[in-house]
Formats: sequence, C-alpha cells, structure tokens
Amino acid sequence: MVTIEHIREARERLGDAVHQTPLLESTLLNRLLGHRILFKAENFQKIGAFKARGALNTLRVLQERGEPLRSVVSHSSGNHAQAVAWACGLIGIPCTVFMPETASAIKQQATRSYGATVVTTPTRQEAEAGSAAMEQEGAMLLHPYDRDEVIAGQGTAALEVLDDGLQPTAVFTPCGGGGLLSGSTVVFRELAPKTALYGVEPVSANDAARSYRSGSLFRFEEAPKTLADGVQTLSLSERTLRYIRRTDGIIEVDEEEIVYWTQWLTHLLKVTVEPTAVLGMAGAARWLAGRKKPETVLVILTGGNLSSETRARIWDRDLLQTVPEPGV
Amino acid sequence: MVTIEHIREARERLGDAVHQTPLLESTLLNRLLGHRILFKAENFQKIGAFKARGALNTLRVLQERGEPLRSVVSHSSGNHAQAVAWACGLIGIPCTVFMPETASAIKQQATRSYGATVVTTPTRQEAEAGSAAMEQEGAMLLHPYDRDEVIAGQGTAALEVLDDGLQPTAVFTPCGGGGLLSGSTVVFRELAPKTALYGVEPVSANDAARSYRSGSLFRFEEAPKTLADGVQTLSLSERTLRYIRRTDGIIEVDEEEIVYWTQWLTHLLKVTVEPTAVLGMAGAARWLAGRKKPETVLVILTGGNLSSETRARIWDRDLLQTVPEPGV
Repeated sequence: MVTIEHIREARERLGDAVHQTPLLESTLLNRLLGHRILFKAENFQKIGAFKARGALNTLRVLQERGEPLRSVVSHSSGNHAQAVAWACGLIGIPCTVFMPETASAIKQQATRSYGATVVTTPTRQEAEAGSAAMEQEGAMLLHPYDRDEVIAGQGTAALEVLDDGLQPTAVFTPCGGGGLLSGSTVVFRELAPKTALYGVEPVSANDAARSYRSGSLFRFEEAPKTLADGVQTLSLSERTLRYIRRTDGIIEVDEEEIVYWTQWLTHLLKVTVEPTAVLGMAGAARWLAGRKKPETVLVILTGGNLSSETRARIWDRDLLQTVPEPGV
Repeated sequence: MVTIEHIREARERLGDAVHQTPLLESTLLNRLLGHRILFKAENFQKIGAFKARGALNTLRVLQERGEPLRSVVSHSSGNHAQAVAWACGLIGIPCTVFMPETASAIKQQATRSYGATVVTTPTRQEAEAGSAAMEQEGAMLLHPYDRDEVIAGQGTAALEVLDDGLQPTAVFTPCGGGGLLSGSTVVFRELAPKTALYGVEPVSANDAARSYRSGSLFRFEEAPKTLADGVQTLSLSERTLRYIRRTDGIIEVDEEEIVYWTQWLTHLLKVTVEPTAVLGMAGAARWLAGRKKPETVLVILTGGNLSSETRARIWDRDLLQTVPEPGV
C-alpha cells in the first residue's frame, strides 16, 4: 500500500517541476452558503490538471530504479494523455499518444506542443489498439490510476493543503478511476484523521458509489454518459477500491448540478474549470445543506481543460440567475 | 501630481484589505510566441477587478483627513460600482448605487451582497440623474478615475509587480478613463524608467489614442460600441491625460482581436477574464510581432466580471482552432 512516506517522497521528487497550486475562496460564496469553502486550484497545475503529478512521479521513480525507459505510449483524449506527453518531454523520453479523431483540435495541439508524437485514429478502440501494439514492442504504457506511483503523485496535492495549515472538516474530490481520491485518503487518514473524506461522481457514472456500497468492483459495460468527461472510466481498480473503502462515502450528483456549479465557480472564482472539476463542489453543497453550524471544507478543483464543445453545452442556458443558497 | 510616495502610502493604507494578486504565465503561450508574457491577475482582486484598490484608497484617505463621510453614491453597471459598494461596506458607510435595469442580474446581486442599496432605473441617464441628486443632498460621489487618490490606489498593482522582482521590457494595460494607466505610469517612470508603457484601446473607442496624438482631450458624443465594456468611457480627464502623455503610446486593436484573446487566455491561463481585461494582451501581441529577440513583457488583466450576455457573444464562434503564432 502507498503510505504517507511515499507521498512525501513524491513531493520531493516532483520538486519545482509541478506548481504548488493556490487555495482559492470566494467571500461571496462563503457568505451565501454560510460556510467557508476552500478550493485547491489544480486547474492551474502544469497541463491544466492534477494528472501532471502522478505521471511525472511514475517516470522519475522508474528512472531512479534504473529501469530502461526507451519510450512511453499512452492513449487518451483527456488530461492523462497531456500529462504523459508533458512528463516525457520534461525528462527527454520519446512519447507517442494515440488520440481518437474526435479529440478536440486544441487538445491535440496541446499534446503535440509538449513534444509527443500524436497519432489520430478513427475510433477510441483503434487508439487503444495502437497503444497496446506499441506496448508489445517494448514501450512503457503508463496507466492513469492503477499504479502506486501514480497514486502517490496525486496525493501530493492533499499534502500541500495540510502544509498550508488548513485542517478542513471535510474534503470533496471527483472520483473517476480513483487515483486522486486514493492518494488524498492516505494523506488525510494519516495526518488529519478527523477530516471526513468524500468522492463525488455523476449519478449516471456511479461505478465507484456502487463498488463502495457492495465492497466489490462494479464495472460499466460501456462509457457512461456525463458532461464530466474526466470520470467516464468504466470502473475503479482493485487497487484504488482498497483506498476508497476507507473514505466516508461517494456522493452522487446529477448533470444539472454539474452545469450549475461549473457556471457559478467560473463566475465567482474567476477560473476556468471543466465540468469534472466541479464535482467536489456539487458534493460539498449537498453535504453542507445538512450542517447546522458553519464548517470549513476543502474542494479539489481537478482541472480546467474545457473543449469548445463542452463549453457550449455548459453555457447553453443561464443558471447564474439562480443564486446559491444554504440547503439547496 | 501623484508621486511614487503617494502610491507607496496607498499600499500601506490598503494593507490586507486587497489581495496581492499573483503573476501568471502560460508556458505554452510563451513557446508559441517566442516571448515571455506575465499576467498580473487583477481578475482575482476583491470584487473581481483592480477597481477595489482606488475606491478603498479614496475612502480611507478621506477618513484619515477627518472629512465627514456620511454616505457615498455611485452610478454604474460596471466594476467601479461594485468597488464602491464593497469599499463602503468594509468601512461601514451607507452606499447607494444607481444601476440601469439593463445591468445584469448577477451584477446587481453582487453589488447588493456587498451591502449597497441598489436602485435600478429604466435608463443609464436616469441612473446618473439619481446619483447627481443624492450628491446635491450631501452624499459623496466617488469618481471612477478623475481623482488623485483613485490613481494612487490603482498604481499599487504595478508597485506589487516591481516588488515581485519583475523588470519587464514593456507593460500593456487597458485604457478607459485612464486611472490604471496613470497610476502605472507613475510607478514605472519612477522605478523602472527603461520599461516601455502602452495603453490599449478598441479602435472603435479610441478617445485616448486621439487625445494622446493631438495632446488635447478628445471626447466621444456617445458611448462607443465595443465588447470591452470597461473602456466605453467618453474621454480621459485633463488629469489622466497629463500622465498618459508620458507613456509610449496607445495601441488600438479591433473587436476580433478582443474575442480571440478572451478565448485564448481563458483557455491557456484557466482564468475568467472579461473582454476589457485582454486588451493588454491584444496590444502586446501586436507589439511583440515586431520584436526580433525574446522579450519579457507584463500584461495587466484588469477584471473577470463577465455577464452571461457578453460570455455568449465571446463564445458564439470557435477561435481556439487558430493557434497563436509569432508575428500575427
């Protein structure tokens, strides 16, 4: 199991290569809800998402161990692909990323600009096949969450929060494959055991909630539909489920709440957030609605890589007319 | 004239009531343009814009002088109104803001939440009339730029940049009434005289450019049309023109450049910026296109208060397909 020592070592290892991201808050939001909500702004992280932490930690661990790292391959249209491309560029390993043609032009451009060779394929399945073929030929395939070094890397965000002196009553993070939540669980269970810990998922993509309740891995047959494209993973892994069973639960939210909080956090915090990133806030709002005295909570904003298509779907109606209020 | 000492005093006076806003940069943008561009993120300032600085400095100066301050009045649908409401709330003076009904619901809500009484009127002219009537009855009308204490307050943003150790080759700020540019001019001319200083305006609202060229105040008959609603002022004042004549010029940009950079800075910096806020970047891009060796420049992002209507107009087409490149 990953321990707090692994996460401390990961932070040393990452050094200045990743940003120590700021904690943001909105005086207005605090006043409207009657609680203090702090946001760890991983949308300002390298590549625009926390994924940079886990990818670079993994490659540097392998380097330290002297393992031969001739080339890395990945497939994804999401933040993990960009993280792998960026981390490989930083340490000078050739990297190939297979992306489906449906991946937005700006994500392809960003991945190329980090120095990766981008191969576009007609479908997602063909991207996976291309990636698997290169792994067969000896390239290293970097898994987005089912790996101790990735979990330790993602945990460094939570460690920074505690080093900032913040001891929240509760913490809310999105939960896709569970890497970030697993790493955060190690940090808080070890260093702040009174802090409650919640993962948050769209109800339409609630594999983690089902796995948490039953205690065994639930797997979707095909990618669930949700605006929060960062948590469309089919399932946790056995590895991440072990950590996630130690949390206080998985909160399920609907698509309307995701759109609502994407609009409101864009407005109040002046940040660009992707729908996945606001899951923590949507879960926090539900949890805070049941609290009688003022609480201080932490929400991890996971990323800000918003495609034009998703942006258009977020802003096709105006939810800023409906002001946040307690208990809603 | 405002001196660097006035600006240093203003910063002492403002203390922790305003944020020392961060300097942001995008590695990708730097690489694409071949220059280093640093952004002073005043969109993260209290009330979401630099205007908080000048408004609070003014009220605190009047308090220090022991001037009777029974009530303050303002009219605006913009950032200055919110700044006045916020500053009055902070020091406990009743404040009335007259806003035209066309002001967006969220701006009205924000202004109310700072503790101001908001009076909506059918037209902008009636808002001004209401404000003038209250001034007649003894309320203090806080002008958005034609006042030394406001200029000194706005100058504190530039002072923070120099205290961060940054000595840019050139600085680019939007220019509406000229308060921010005036304050910045005092700071840079005094402490970094080799730094070039430019104001940036939409070509459709180029009163400052015309005044700069002719040396005498040019005034529009009616509010010019531009997406950059923060610089729709009819003219500089004689006071601000005196400072602005000491800059290196006013760069005029078109509406397409404003939309382009609003989209790209939202995407690259992961920040919410209003169209006015990106004027500096639009001007910097023009200026950098003519530079042969890599430069380090500063852009002041003035605010992030974007109405739903403006957001819809910014994103009604997709300019993220056209990647920034040098000389464009």
